[in-house]
Amino acid sequence: MLLKNMIQEKLDNLEKLDITAKQKAETQTRFLQKLALLTHAFYEGKMMVMPKVSLRHPLLFSIWYTPGVASVSRAIRENNELSFSLSNRHNSVAVVSDSTRVLGDGDCTPPGGLGVMEGKALLMKFLGGVDATALCVNSKDEQGQPTASKLIDFVKMCAPSFGAINLEDISSPNCYQVLDTLREESEIPVWHDDAQGTACVTLAGLLNALKLTEKKIEDVKMVFFGVGAANTSVINLIWQIGGNPKNMIVLNSKGGLHVDRQEFAQDTRLYKQWEICQKTNPQKINKIEEALKGADVLIALSKPGPDTIKPEWISLMGQKAIVFACANPVPEIYPYAAKAAGAYIVATGRSDFPNQVNNSLGFPGILKGTLLVRARKITDAMAIAASRAIANYIKDQDLSADNIMPTMADWELVPTVAAAVAEQAQKDGVARKKITSKEVFARAKHDIELIRQIQDLMENKGFIKPIPDEIIEKAWLEAAP
Amino acid sequence: MLLKNMIQEKLDNLEKLDITAKQKAETQTRFLQKLALLTHAFYEGKMMVMPKVSLRHPLLFSIWYTPGVASVSRAIRENNELSFSLSNRHNSVAVVSDSTRVLGDGDCTPPGGLGVMEGKALLMKFLGGVDATALCVNSKDEQGQPTASKLIDFVKMCAPSFGAINLEDISSPNCYQVLDTLREESEIPVWHDDAQGTACVTLAGLLNALKLTEKKIEDVKMVFFGVGAANTSVINLIWQIGGNPKNMIVLNSKGGLHVDRQEFAQDTRLYKQWEICQKTNPQKINKIEEALKGADVLIALSKPGPDTIKPEWISLMGQKAIVFACANPVPEIYPYAAKAAGAYIVATGRSDFPNQVNNSLGFPGILKGTLLVRARKITDAMAIAASRAIANYIKDQDLSADNIMPTMADWELVPTVAAAVAEQAQKDGVARKKITSKEVFARAKHDIELIRQIQDLMENKGFIKPIPDEIIEKAWLEAAP
Repeated sequence: MLLKNMIQEKLDNLEKLDITAKQKAETQTRFLQKLALLTHAFYEGKMMVMPKVSLRHPLLFSIWYTPGVASVSRAIRENNELSFSLSNRHNSVAVVSDSTRVLGDGDCTPPGGLGVMEGKALLMKFLGGVDATALCVNSKDEQGQPTASKLIDFVKMCAPSFGAINLEDISSPNCYQVLDTLREESEIPVWHDDAQGTACVTLAGLLNALKLTEKKIEDVKMVFFGVGAANTSVINLIWQIGGNPKNMIVLNSKGGLHVDRQEFAQDTRLYKQWEICQKTNPQKINKIEEALKGADVLIALSKPGPDTIKPEWISLMGQKAIVFACANPVPEIYPYAAKAAGAYIVATGRSDFPNQVNNSLGFPGILKGTLLVRARKITDAMAIAASRAIANYIKDQDLSADNIMPTMADWELVPTVAAAVAEQAQKDGVARKKITSKEVFARAKHDIELIRQIQDLMENKGFIKPIPDEIIEKAWLEAAP
Repeated sequence: MLLKNMIQEKLDNLEKLDITAKQKAETQTRFLQKLALLTHAFYEGKMMVMPKVSLRHPLLFSIWYTPGVASVSRAIRENNELSFSLSNRHNSVAVVSDSTRVLGDGDCTPPGGLGVMEGKALLMKFLGGVDATALCVNSKDEQGQPTASKLIDFVKMCAPSFGAINLEDISSPNCYQVLDTLREESEIPVWHDDAQGTACVTLAGLLNALKLTEKKIEDVKMVFFGVGAANTSVINLIWQIGGNPKNMIVLNSKGGLHVDRQEFAQDTRLYKQWEICQKTNPQKINKIEEALKGADVLIALSKPGPDTIKPEWISLMGQKAIVFACANPVPEIYPYAAKAAGAYIVATGRSDFPNQVNNSLGFPGILKGTLLVRARKITDAMAIAASRAIANYIKDQDLSADNIMPTMADWELVPTVAAAVAEQAQKDGVARKKITSKEVFARAKHDIELIRQIQDLMENKGFIKPIPDEIIEKAWLEAAP
């Protein structure tokens, strides 16, 4: 699949330039973003639809459309669950966003999220064999404010057409209410990848870090920095696998969360943060230096670094300290700095450092497994099963301080995660369909291989053109330092 | 593209059986419907999504997703119209239905429409090169009633993700309010194919019938039977091209529409019918026999025949009478019976009779042309331009009583219609983009050829499997008389 790649050449040349690491990183981002604009315009978007049935004879239109298809409508009317076997619903996910928190750029107006949501759909298809549709939604009320209730109504209304919903890039605090309401009230599973997806993959890394350092979740002292959708979900999952709230201290930029933080009690939309205030940090610690004294684990999901977390804080932590510094695009502290300050294991969101905490390790398998059992919801136990499957994908003998996370090159990871999730869904009684783990694994693997073969064929035959060299040159000229 | 086809063989054998024509027709429908159930289950739905960009190198994911794609969000935020060039929005249509009037089967519950809407998406892609998504929507209120306002809100909310909306299979009277409100208030074009699509293609046939019989729209006496979404739209278009309301008589099963029909005045949702009552039929004729005396044109879009329109009524019509009997699956009167009773031209909805009035002649080109100029709405003038393009596709020398409609085999029809619609959109000031008719024609033709080449390749390479013979045998055994 690797052909001559002028983009790689440009980045290799950049590496050799006599400029600072910071300048290199900035130039690389600028280049990729210039290139993204030009290539998105060249292809006019990223995703399309295609028939998946035979059309070899005009007569077949009488089956796919009227009069034949009438029997399909009638059958589904008699038994709505047949919509999963007689339409593509069983493999369809809506990627729903109100575009109010698109990557690091905040509110991008409703259509502003389309590039990202189409990108997510692309990842779902290529990594998980899942058919996803980008739905960037205008959920603004008459005052121009995005409202949770409108988004909730929208998802409930379109639910009959999909097998699952993936929420994405919804700003806080709406995101909490939207997810929690829909998890309870929707007839199909609703997943918020920024929250649950990040939590699931972070937990996988944490499980391996604990295994490697021979620490137990019940005993470790944990500090969390940042209390947005991602970290609140991480904390929730850790509680469920036995983490002791009393051993946890959660901080945001204004200090520690505890019962004196009345602003969280007063804004009912921040009920998740208030729950954390009530359960954790009984000593009411407010300073990160104090919090980190002797701590085993730091999980930072806060603002981009590199100086958000200071090395001297890390040096206060205990033996074999575990540090997740997962802000993007720049971690709260660079791994080399954290290690120099005494950290034993460091994980970040970056692909160019060891131990990348990457949502793509989670959501393709989670959604595929969920769809293959036609689950009614994604329980926390299913998310935790996914975390364990991701963690266990690395064999004990391969586990090391620089190898606690699998990567996207791990070919069988997605089917493995799908199988674990599907099994747990059946245990939890939320599956509409009974299917063995082996079958889930085989079907997920087949679907992923199929899309990759089709993609190769489309590129080989020229139906998908390569990116023209001129575009890459142009982006490089505009971005070069 | 024609291979051995066992379905055709079965139908050919059916033709030879010693049973009545009615039994043959019923057996054929039963066979196609049994086959539809089995084949939909075999393929598990009809449509999928696919990337349309190069993925030949892992680095490209940094362009299609983070960090590259951030520049796309920011660009669209600055100028929302860039969502048409930087995402697939420019070629995306939502096929939206509340599934309350699915083909002839009435309310099929929200997921019940998926088979038909996926089928419509298939036709849009294969015939028009348009990427469509099936959205079957639960628009029921707390009393379980489908509500127009919920459906309107839904379409407005998802509009930022699409280039146009195709409404489908929405029951009366909600369909009128939904269409008319959205045509006025939506930022993208909204098309109701059951109403406007049927009207547009019917008008095309009427234009050719009038040309052939050397009658003028201003002068002809016209009778309409049935006053649902389709016929109200036909009447509206005919008014706009110069049809004289005073020469029109519109009837439903309860008699003629005129100012004494107060039930239409009292139910404000039936405002289209009430407008017809006020404008047409000044003599307040109530009997179809009386209405048809000396009439030039009868357009029936009412209930399936074959005895809905009686031959003796046709014999009351004037010279060179034009009869559209377009109920499906059985016309209100069979063409042979209408002709025997004196009709000169007969059109139906059926592919096995001459002059098929088939929506597929209209919507693929109309939507493609609309999308290619990124129109804000589809004006009535655009619909009429499409009608004229469809009519003029048949050259004068080829026009005959049995050849007033092009067929789906007319390869360049869709690009021709697209070009006419795009040109009219620019004249009407609703186009976001300036583009010549020649360019529209070429782009439409290219897109249609591309999908057909890809489809062929997928079938040739076995990525789309043929329908197994066993399935066809099974359907036949279940359906055989």
